[in-house]
Amino acid sequence: AVNPDLAIERQTASFSVEKLTAWLDGGEEHTRTRRAVVEAIERDPVFSRENQYFQSQNERYEAAVRKAVHLQKKMHEMGWTETGPEFKYIYRAVSGDIAFLLHRIFIRSISVLGSDKQIAKWIPLATQHKLIGSYAQTELGHGTYLQGLETTAVFDITTQEFILNTPKISAMKWWPGDMGRSATHTVVFAQLYTNGQCYGVHPFIVQIRSLRDHSLCPGITAGDIGPKMNFEHVDNGYLMLQNVRVPRENMLNRFCEVQPDGTYVRQGSQKINYFTMTTVRISLISDEVIIPLMKACTIAIRYSVVRRQSKLKPGEQEAKILDYQTQQEKLLPQLAAAYAFHFINDYLQELFNRGYGEIQKKNFETLPELHAFSSGFKALVTQYSTSAVQICLQACGGHGYSSLSGLPSLYTKIIASCIYEGENTILLLQTARFLIKCFRAASTGQAVPPSVTYLAAVKPGKCPAKNKLEFLSPDIYTEAYQHMASRLVSSTAAKLQDLIQSGVKKHDAWNQCTVQLAQAAKAHCHYITVKNFAETVEKLKTEAGIQRIMKRLCDLFALHGIFSNAGVFLHDGYISGAQMDMITASYLDLLAVIRKDAVPLVDAFDFTDKSLNSALGSYDGQVYQRLYEWAQKSPTNKQMSPAYERYLKPLLHNTQSKL
Amino acid sequence: AVNPDLAIERQTASFSVEKLTAWLDGGEEHTRTRRAVVEAIERDPVFSRENQYFQSQNERYEAAVRKAVHLQKKMHEMGWTETGPEFKYIYRAVSGDIAFLLHRIFIRSISVLGSDKQIAKWIPLATQHKLIGSYAQTELGHGTYLQGLETTAVFDITTQEFILNTPKISAMKWWPGDMGRSATHTVVFAQLYTNGQCYGVHPFIVQIRSLRDHSLCPGITAGDIGPKMNFEHVDNGYLMLQNVRVPRENMLNRFCEVQPDGTYVRQGSQKINYFTMTTVRISLISDEVIIPLMKACTIAIRYSVVRRQSKLKPGEQEAKILDYQTQQEKLLPQLAAAYAFHFINDYLQELFNRGYGEIQKKNFETLPELHAFSSGFKALVTQYSTSAVQICLQACGGHGYSSLSGLPSLYTKIIASCIYEGENTILLLQTARFLIKCFRAASTGQAVPPSVTYLAAVKPGKCPAKNKLEFLSPDIYTEAYQHMASRLVSSTAAKLQDLIQSGVKKHDAWNQCTVQLAQAAKAHCHYITVKNFAETVEKLKTEAGIQRIMKRLCDLFALHGIFSNAGVFLHDGYISGAQMDMITASYLDLLAVIRKDAVPLVDAFDFTDKSLNSALGSYDGQVYQRLYEWAQKSPTNKQMSPAYERYLKPLLHNTQSKL
Repeated sequence: AVNPDLAIERQTASFSVEKLTAWLDGGEEHTRTRRAVVEAIERDPVFSRENQYFQSQNERYEAAVRKAVHLQKKMHEMGWTETGPEFKYIYRAVSGDIAFLLHRIFIRSISVLGSDKQIAKWIPLATQHKLIGSYAQTELGHGTYLQGLETTAVFDITTQEFILNTPKISAMKWWPGDMGRSATHTVVFAQLYTNGQCYGVHPFIVQIRSLRDHSLCPGITAGDIGPKMNFEHVDNGYLMLQNVRVPRENMLNRFCEVQPDGTYVRQGSQKINYFTMTTVRISLISDEVIIPLMKACTIAIRYSVVRRQSKLKPGEQEAKILDYQTQQEKLLPQLAAAYAFHFINDYLQELFNRGYGEIQKKNFETLPELHAFSSGFKALVTQYSTSAVQICLQACGGHGYSSLSGLPSLYTKIIASCIYEGENTILLLQTARFLIKCFRAASTGQAVPPSVTYLAAVKPGKCPAKNKLEFLSPDIYTEAYQHMASRLVSSTAAKLQDLIQSGVKKHDAWNQCTVQLAQAAKAHCHYITVKNFAETVEKLKTEAGIQRIMKRLCDLFALHGIFSNAGVFLHDGYISGAQMDMITASYLDLLAVIRKDAVPLVDAFDFTDKSLNSALGSYDGQVYQRLYEWAQKSPTNKQMSPAYERYLKPLLHNTQSKL
Repeated sequence: AVNPDLAIERQTASFSVEKLTAWLDGGEEHTRTRRAVVEAIERDPVFSRENQYFQSQNERYEAAVRKAVHLQKKMHEMGWTETGPEFKYIYRAVSGDIAFLLHRIFIRSISVLGSDKQIAKWIPLATQHKLIGSYAQTELGHGTYLQGLETTAVFDITTQEFILNTPKISAMKWWPGDMGRSATHTVVFAQLYTNGQCYGVHPFIVQIRSLRDHSLCPGITAGDIGPKMNFEHVDNGYLMLQNVRVPRENMLNRFCEVQPDGTYVRQGSQKINYFTMTTVRISLISDEVIIPLMKACTIAIRYSVVRRQSKLKPGEQEAKILDYQTQQEKLLPQLAAAYAFHFINDYLQELFNRGYGEIQKKNFETLPELHAFSSGFKALVTQYSTSAVQICLQACGGHGYSSLSGLPSLYTKIIASCIYEGENTILLLQTARFLIKCFRAASTGQAVPPSVTYLAAVKPGKCPAKNKLEFLSPDIYTEAYQHMASRLVSSTAAKLQDLIQSGVKKHDAWNQCTVQLAQAAKAHCHYITVKNFAETVEKLKTEAGIQRIMKRLCDLFALHGIFSNAGVFLHDGYISGAQMDMITASYLDLLAVIRKDAVPLVDAFDFTDKSLNSALGSYDGQVYQRLYEWAQKSPTNKQMSPAYERYLKPLLHNTQSKL
């Protein structure tokens, strides 16, 4: 039975949830495919996550390996292939708790960086799982700055081998997934030395464990790096190499090669590597960031109409906590952001597909823009979503803090996305570098990509809106964002210029502007996100109810952003204090309006109870019953703790049993 | 050996670290006492936290009980008493991982709410640990709103007993610490019924487990609520009561009593209860919030001078990450906040002590102010510090995400402080209610507490500062904060008034203003924190070096607050856009200046390596060595995972061992 407080929320939906779901999926046939995949996975007990919150790191690793191995069988059984329509839903359906993701990166890196001969040798072995691969790039002392990697690979002409070494502790490979306990092989990135000269970082295939008994190969020290904030199911590992020899053929040599006499030869373009990083950054946004954010919103919003606390009006029943303005103000902007990011992800995919088409025609012109966009949006979306999930967790009070709510694990996982695949601040500064370059080019009349032509149009001005209703016009707020973003880019460019002209060295000047550069990059991405949301709503051809609510979410996302970053809009007077009051009024009005559709809006994300794995967020809203049932399964309730016999009994050595 | 990159940071300190430590402690004798306590605790292997990051919930609970029992012995052995100077350092020294804190609340609630007879019976039993007490207030369905509790206690005249029941699942007691597995007794809060009438929530002493074998008493269902985001060492519990009978004498009856004939009699004032909550809120700020924040700053700042990454100048060695402006901008404001909150804690303690003196003289006049302050500052300090610890964690990149950094556990613990002892938003609204009341009183010339007289002085105006250096004047920025806080309070009061005058009902109007009311309350507390920091620096009589650096930290805290909340300062033109640029310039300049003393400033917090329990934060800066050593101890490296035999071996059924 559905909790009546939750049931009533669904009766008053102003649109068809089923139609919204189909539209979000990109069509009904996609919804059907997705649901079929989810159902097949969830029906299979091997993929169960029922005990996940009670498992140790060892148990979660074991389950992840079991699932990964079983998935191969399952795919075969179901007729799912890597190129089929089901594939993109599988990872989502297993909810990420699966091993051997790095095995896929291993395969991808050989496919991209390996010669045809290397591909012919290694890819079949890998795809048939005759080995388990990993990808050993990051070191204890080096993450983002790849040029600084310290592992060495010295070519020995006499044996035609590379000798790999970890010269010091900071050079130890550290963090690679699947490497701590699973992998038999890995791609090691090392500084290549041949004929006494260093040629920079190159990739080498290295076997690290025996295929017979999984023991470590000679010269290899490897293990698990221990507990983390989450990702207990992944065996992130460490690796030390001591005079480990690999044949000359094990250096991935599509783009450069060491010849038998030790001569280093570079061939072809490596620009495509650039593109691989871009791909990864864009591909993680959906599954690792937006889906978890949508789950957190679903849990927190459903719970907030079941939970009643205190009274809004004296004498009445206690109120649903979602009826409090402060609770709406916590949750509804996060819901709007989940939609905004879903749409910006579509935008990035399209940009990427267009770029990929060009690249296949050997046109690398769009690469800088693609790189700047993937970097900036990765940073914006991961940071924003991490805060959003934290807000959802805290908005559920004490029960949000229980692991059984599902929110702690969503949070401790999503926060990692701010760090992996490029630390966010560094990524924002890469976007900023692109923006400054484009701003300078545009200012001198040179051509720039269409997405940044607005940078040339900086001019002082004032927002024309005259009352709070006018701030519900996408033209008004998109213009405000555009003005703000271009002002931040141009003023930072000016500061940079001033510093250099006053004699500060270029790199020092850059460093002294980085706080503002990062802010400008974020502003740019925020602007594009708002603009894209507005355009998506504009183009939307579907039932009126969906159009109306999407328009409101877009307004909310935009006005929330102005309300929470008021300073950058007020700074030059583009928005006046009086206008900010109108924005605030419109923003708060919107909360009360959207609140009515809050539950249908999260229902449309179409998560099954199993995929939410939350005692607070299930479709039926039986929150308290479920918390109680799940708690009873905890290992802490399985038997009397040995602490009783050891410590409590001696303490309570009373003769009476009752006081 | 100390890492040379860290060692050099200490050689250039602009002040005496030892003197700063003594000043923070409140005098050298306190430093000596604190160090003696810490040393005694850390030397004792029972209190070791060496394996904490590898332990399961069961193991952490067991360790916490062991420590709690051992602590009694230790205190006796060392001659430490609950009233001695050592006592306040014990909890900090064991770093919170200890059981039976609720036993202390059990004792406190009987001492405050019990009659002399009840105190005489129960307190000796409790202090001699002949029972283990807990405090069962919160229910599955009710936290903050105590009036809504659903547990019932019906007086039965025939047997002179109360019959306690959990009428529905949402009435189950949920969350009380020490109750899931340890407690033998608890104070249950229940709706009292006698002679067919309900008299509201009252406390009853209930035995829940046998003192002979720890089995549950008849009618009792109890257990552990399962895994949480942290606090695995605490057995937060659930409790259901089914016709549980306790004698009439078990209702705590200092203030009200049920007489043998069932007549309910209220006696004396209950105002003092109010004060108990205030006490708890103030007392948790130091140990649960400020100390963890200081630890996070210590870890992140020490690591940031050991970690080198990328180059600031081409051709040079890789730079310490703390030399990047963006890293300074992440960490140094958090360091300044740690100092600011240390001082505001002193301020609150003083306010509290003064109030307590009055209350002992039966003068309850200061209670509303004390309550408003304890609520608002609890909310401000916990929320700010939670964000700060998150920033510290993310600023350490991947290694910050490793449990071995110590940062994940600091974070997952401190975030709970935003929820327990009053959810922050609700607390801020209580502060807001007080501020609105004072604002109205002050506006009509009535007397208000000195801390809020400024509310009457709202007038339009402009900040007089003319260049960036003038923004380093405490008068200038304190005035700006004051102006901003009073504007937010007065404008929200006006909105509230307007709504009511336009016919909106009072409670609806209040709800429609709560987002802004919470903002105003936060602004007030922020203002007082800045003002108090400036006054502390002003009064400071110590060596010039300490005065200088404290002044800078105060400036940084203040300017960071303006920079990050620019909107509320720009809104009415009190600060102009041009002035905001000056503030930004001064703020960024300060970062570079304070950066030089960053390590000495965290060294002054005087944490031992054992208390930090961080591979990244140790005094010697041997970051990479320690990460490696600690990782090897992980249970994930203790033996080959059963996953190999079960899943990997069948997969890799090759005949060759090497490819």
